[in-house]
Amino acid sequence: MKRARLRELGISTGRLPTGRWNAITDVAGVKVGQASLIHDVPSVVRTGVTAIWPAGDDIWTENVYAGSHSFNGNGEMTGLMWIADQGLIGAPICITNTYSVGLVRDAICALAVRDNAPQAFHLPVAAETYDGWLSDSASFPVTTELALAAMDAAASGPVAEGNTGGGTGMNCHEFKGGTGTASRVVSVDGASYTVGALVQANYGERALFRVDGVPVGREITTAEVPTPRDLPPDTGSIIVVIATDAPLLPVQCQRLARRATTGLAWVGGIGGNNSGDIFLAFSTGNRVNPKTPVSTVRTVAAETMTPLFEAAAEATEEAILNAVCMAETMVGQFGRTSRALPLDRLQEVMRKYGRLA
Amino acid sequence: MKRARLRELGISTGRLPTGRWNAITDVAGVKVGQASLIHDVPSVVRTGVTAIWPAGDDIWTENVYAGSHSFNGNGEMTGLMWIADQGLIGAPICITNTYSVGLVRDAICALAVRDNAPQAFHLPVAAETYDGWLSDSASFPVTTELALAAMDAAASGPVAEGNTGGGTGMNCHEFKGGTGTASRVVSVDGASYTVGALVQANYGERALFRVDGVPVGREITTAEVPTPRDLPPDTGSIIVVIATDAPLLPVQCQRLARRATTGLAWVGGIGGNNSGDIFLAFSTGNRVNPKTPVSTVRTVAAETMTPLFEAAAEATEEAILNAVCMAETMVGQFGRTSRALPLDRLQEVMRKYGRLA
Amino acid sequence: MKRARLRELGISTGRLPTGRWNAITDVAGVKVGQASLIHDVPSVVRTGVTAIWPAGDDIWTENVYAGSHSFNGNGEMTGLMWIADQGLIGAPICITNTYSVGLVRDAICALAVRDNAPQAFHLPVAAETYDGWLSDSASFPVTTELALAAMDAAASGPVAEGNTGGGTGMNCHEFKGGTGTASRVVSVDGASYTVGALVQANYGERALFRVDGVPVGREITTAEVPTPRDLPPDTGSIIVVIATDAPLLPVQCQRLARRATTGLAWVGGIGGNNSGDIFLAFSTGNRVNPKTPVSTVRTVAAETMTPLFEAAAEATEEAILNAVCMAETMVGQFGRTSRALPLDRLQEVMRKYGRLA
Amino acid sequence: MKRARLRELGISTGRLPTGRWNAITDVAGVKVGQASLIHDVPSVVRTGVTAIWPAGDDIWTENVYAGSHSFNGNGEMTGLMWIADQGLIGAPICITNTYSVGLVRDAICALAVRDNAPQAFHLPVAAETYDGWLSDSASFPVTTELALAAMDAAASGPVAEGNTGGGTGMNCHEFKGGTGTASRVVSVDGASYTVGALVQANYGERALFRVDGVPVGREITTAEVPTPRDLPPDTGSIIVVIATDAPLLPVQCQRLARRATTGLAWVGGIGGNNSGDIFLAFSTGNRVNPKTPVSTVRTVAAETMTPLFEAAAEATEEAILNAVCMAETMVGQFGRTSRALPLDRLQEVMRKYGRLA
Repeated sequence: MKRARLRELGISTGRLPTGRWNAITDVAGVKVGQASLIHDVPSVVRTGVTAIWPAGDDIWTENVYAGSHSFNGNGEMTGLMWIADQGLIGAPICITNTYSVGLVRDAICALAVRDNAPQAFHLPVAAETYDGWLSDSASFPVTTELALAAMDAAASGPVAEGNTGGGTGMNCHEFKGGTGTASRVVSVDGASYTVGALVQANYGERALFRVDGVPVGREITTAEVPTPRDLPPDTGSIIVVIATDAPLLPVQCQRLARRATTGLAWVGGIGGNNSGDIFLAFSTGNRVNPKTPVSTVRTVAAETMTPLFEAAAEATEEAILNAVCMAETMVGQFGRTSRALPLDRLQEVMRKYGRLA
Repeated sequence: MKRARLRELGISTGRLPTGRWNAITDVAGVKVGQASLIHDVPSVVRTGVTAIWPAGDDIWTENVYAGSHSFNGNGEMTGLMWIADQGLIGAPICITNTYSVGLVRDAICALAVRDNAPQAFHLPVAAETYDGWLSDSASFPVTTELALAAMDAAASGPVAEGNTGGGTGMNCHEFKGGTGTASRVVSVDGASYTVGALVQANYGERALFRVDGVPVGREITTAEVPTPRDLPPDTGSIIVVIATDAPLLPVQCQRLARRATTGLAWVGGIGGNNSGDIFLAFSTGNRVNPKTPVSTVRTVAAETMTPLFEAAAEATEEAILNAVCMAETMVGQFGRTSRALPLDRLQEVMRKYGRLA
Repeated sequence: MKRARLRELGISTGRLPTGRWNAITDVAGVKVGQASLIHDVPSVVRTGVTAIWPAGDDIWTENVYAGSHSFNGNGEMTGLMWIADQGLIGAPICITNTYSVGLVRDAICALAVRDNAPQAFHLPVAAETYDGWLSDSASFPVTTELALAAMDAAASGPVAEGNTGGGTGMNCHEFKGGTGTASRVVSVDGASYTVGALVQANYGERALFRVDGVPVGREITTAEVPTPRDLPPDTGSIIVVIATDAPLLPVQCQRLARRATTGLAWVGGIGGNNSGDIFLAFSTGNRVNPKTPVSTVRTVAAETMTPLFEAAAEATEEAILNAVCMAETMVGQFGRTSRALPLDRLQEVMRKYGRLA
Repeated sequence: MKRARLRELGISTGRLPTGRWNAITDVAGVKVGQASLIHDVPSVVRTGVTAIWPAGDDIWTENVYAGSHSFNGNGEMTGLMWIADQGLIGAPICITNTYSVGLVRDAICALAVRDNAPQAFHLPVAAETYDGWLSDSASFPVTTELALAAMDAAASGPVAEGNTGGGTGMNCHEFKGGTGTASRVVSVDGASYTVGALVQANYGERALFRVDGVPVGREITTAEVPTPRDLPPDTGSIIVVIATDAPLLPVQCQRLARRATTGLAWVGGIGGNNSGDIFLAFSTGNRVNPKTPVSTVRTVAAETMTPLFEAAAEATEEAILNAVCMAETMVGQFGRTSRALPLDRLQEVMRKYGRLA
């Protein structure tokens, strides 16, 4: 059965409507670019870079507010101390593998130099999850050029999911994992806001995997779809990037980022010890030039955060499920195989539990 | 149908075994005491105090390590700055209503004075959730004596749940809420550790309420069991206290506290804006006299945290469900009625979704 | 020699100009009220309450942004979890003694009830330092009425310093301490901003005490001006409240609060273990009704923070010195005496080090 | 006059005795290695890498506890989210320039691969300050080899200061800055503990520069020792690494790290907006294999932290002063010149203020 997104299978979660592409790019101005590296010689490599531009090319001078949350800190996301203090992002955001997160971080600086960015932002955000089970990550295969290619490829519209970009070599709940995205639209006080999530999903135990509350991981066991014997459980991590056009301040972005925890929990992620579960949220609803003596910005009422929280949780949940549904079975180094979630079986289980006609 | 705990209804969640009483008191040395205040004159009052002694009477000199997490900060828990720095609790912990949390906090100091505590701990932990919908909390009915009575009543063994102590006037997912508890036992590297949770549950929207993934709140709607018209959704808060006998350091307690978020999410809590979702975890596995020049303490391996995390999430989830299952319908001020979750209907819904024979 | 503020002695620190009253009340709209309790029967009491209204009576509906920092968490300041999340203060701020901080916190709720505040703010800020050396604080002498009296007494203009309000029973660098205040004015990009600080100073070791870098505490030793034998060194705490009219966001207030550390260091405070060194900063430059669906607020450029930081550090430093210079020698329980810094000797030492003509 | 350390000039600060080398290497087991890159073609480069090994080669399996503090977050230090959660460092720590911090971070992973480290630690600590004023940092001159060379060069004993390693191209208080170190020894409860600091100092305004409270920066003005016209004030950052052999837990390390703020304040650093003032503290007093099921560790009494705090503040202060005193005048790109603090003038000023015979 051809890979498909969750909703294409007739399954949905949550109660809020999606945006047009059900992707982070539904937030106006957000672009995503990816570059993947899949080769078997000289070493077996399954890796890549995913880049998110929060506000198109304007980002260098029109920074956006952001906030982060570390649910389990066994991972890396650079740039967070300045975001904690100043709350602004002024460069694209990249996700890659653990051993290359530094190189990719510097590559964002190199992009600013290459493109003669009007205001260099020296503290970019690069995050990672570990792909060293399928990929020879110790060969340090990611290059500055690959990172630049990912950033240069950024576009609006649908986002390639599954074995793409930084998500290429991931596993999730002992199935093949990867890159996924989803979005939600909420209406508050007459305004309509979009919340999108993009995940690099590389975490989790089979038995805990749930779809809309249905214990799919207890039905499609490792006896049926084997976990490779030597894949340590919960060995990975999940990076979640949340975007919204609701006008938020940095402290509000911090709160939004924390709700990725809720969506993650709904799928069965508990932030296991070996998992770097690190979340970033940004708002395109204000664009701020940090050099302007006094900027005027907007902020939603405190109570508007509740529907945005629900949207963030739902978008995160469905982004993870999209990653797993879209990822194809992949063979990596040492003949290791990470198997895709069988979609027909998923439908069957959902039917058994009364969630699919 | 008589109120009952979740498991007495034939329903269970999670995969880990419970402790003897399925209560926070399963962690050896932990005692719970409660005092409730329910009267209709001179004003209608539905409130109380719940007290948790982490290490019996030894607590003044044998402090225990602790850590906290604020998932949504619309609430109060005192004493957290010193816990962030020093990681030690040296007094009982109390939970009460919003308008009395200060008085109860001072009452813990007063207890130390009254009992001539060998080492006064000046920064006690008192937390709150809001009961001003059922109770005339603006009459400030809680007294120092009530707080002392709760602390004096502490005992091991089963814990009274539902409309008890600080949980007396609570609502949860638009049903009657209150005090609940549960526990789990995990085995790691040949050692057996208990994790218990006690919650004061006063949060949440009906439609999001789930039991083991089953969308109970979409089945037992407000058309069937009415929400009082003027109860604002998600108006409340949840306090979660997690105890374990696993020997943890303060940073490990912080991580454990964060997992209450996961259990809360499983029941349908998203940390709505008006909710003070504040979590505290402590470990009785080390007892430390802060005056000892150099203390020797123990700490589990990083990877041992994963089963403890799952236990904390499961115990939190079931503690909330126990609070809701045990709480009786309550009539409060202005004739307002908070209705109990109908347990027969809960069983019916669980049957419909294939979770109950 | 009559007590005097630092500048009245011909001594000044820092390079920025002060506001009109060299007080936190130089920030337009900020009012301070105090109530002191000094009596010898039935028990010897030297305590009180200091109240700061950030934005006059409008505060209930016109909240101001705020942020906090805990340099050493051996103290209590309530309300900080909501300030971390939401960044808004919607009630007066109070400071008192350790054993009464809860009561005073609840009294702020009681004020909202008494005055039928248009929007009750349930998570007020109350902070404390310990006065149990001079005062019988275990007699719990502070009452709700005293707290209300302090809040009701709020006024603009000069602020009574030394043995006043919550600062009544304090010690500082082993001299008599108490309440102090100071302010600074900075000009940035054609705008003029005021930064004011109010401290309750109750910390520090004699030998570390400095005035404008001069080691005054090494010159006026405990041989000359005795420390009472049984006053444990560094037993106290310091609360610093910083106000500014510069339009700041919550994250910017957090940064400003952190600079109290710098001013404290300049006087010789190192955040000793027993000290609760907790700082709060708020900005009156935005007034926000948290119920407004979308508010428009202003924020200064990142680089504008630098002069504000310097102003906050200088105002904190001078506020501490004003507290010490204005506090009179006080005799407390058990005949204990806390001696005032001798001002003529201070001038003499400053002359010796070339800082006073 | 030949460059010299502060004490070689007859000047000292603080009241605690130093260790043998007055360096971070006085903490047993701590080693420092540096590699510098100074060339004029093809581009003008003044940069390098400084490496600190917390526990010799054992670090991969005998991790040490650590904690961090961001006083002003305009900088980067990787690895801090895991340190916040787990509190362990399991690799060398490196400091370099802003544009290369990612590469150097990955190089620590590469070292683990190269040396077949028994337990790879995937989340190393690399920090940065900006040297793009003297050095063509946009040419990205630092290589993996240079970083490995710095790590390989680690040794005990005296540490080269001034224009060395990552500190090569730094400015400090508008003089030439760089790498500096110092240490202190404290006795508590019969035990003797050493606290050492190493700084990469690249921050600060001339007018605020102080030595032992003496306003040296107001005496040796930019009229006398020019600041290059186009060096923006406070454009840099300061990284402080504090080591101690006192047995501390992670939360205690966090508290110790925060005291770098105090030492920095004493020299005149206020954490200006453009400065990344990020501090790391680690304790060699416990060595922990994170795989051991239950480890036994030691922790000092809370009150022991006070002398350690003072030691950390003093060591940080003197490390900065050593960096400035040891750094030689340097000419960089575009003929820009960063001038050394004239040591004879420093002595003269200290004499004028009565601090030097």
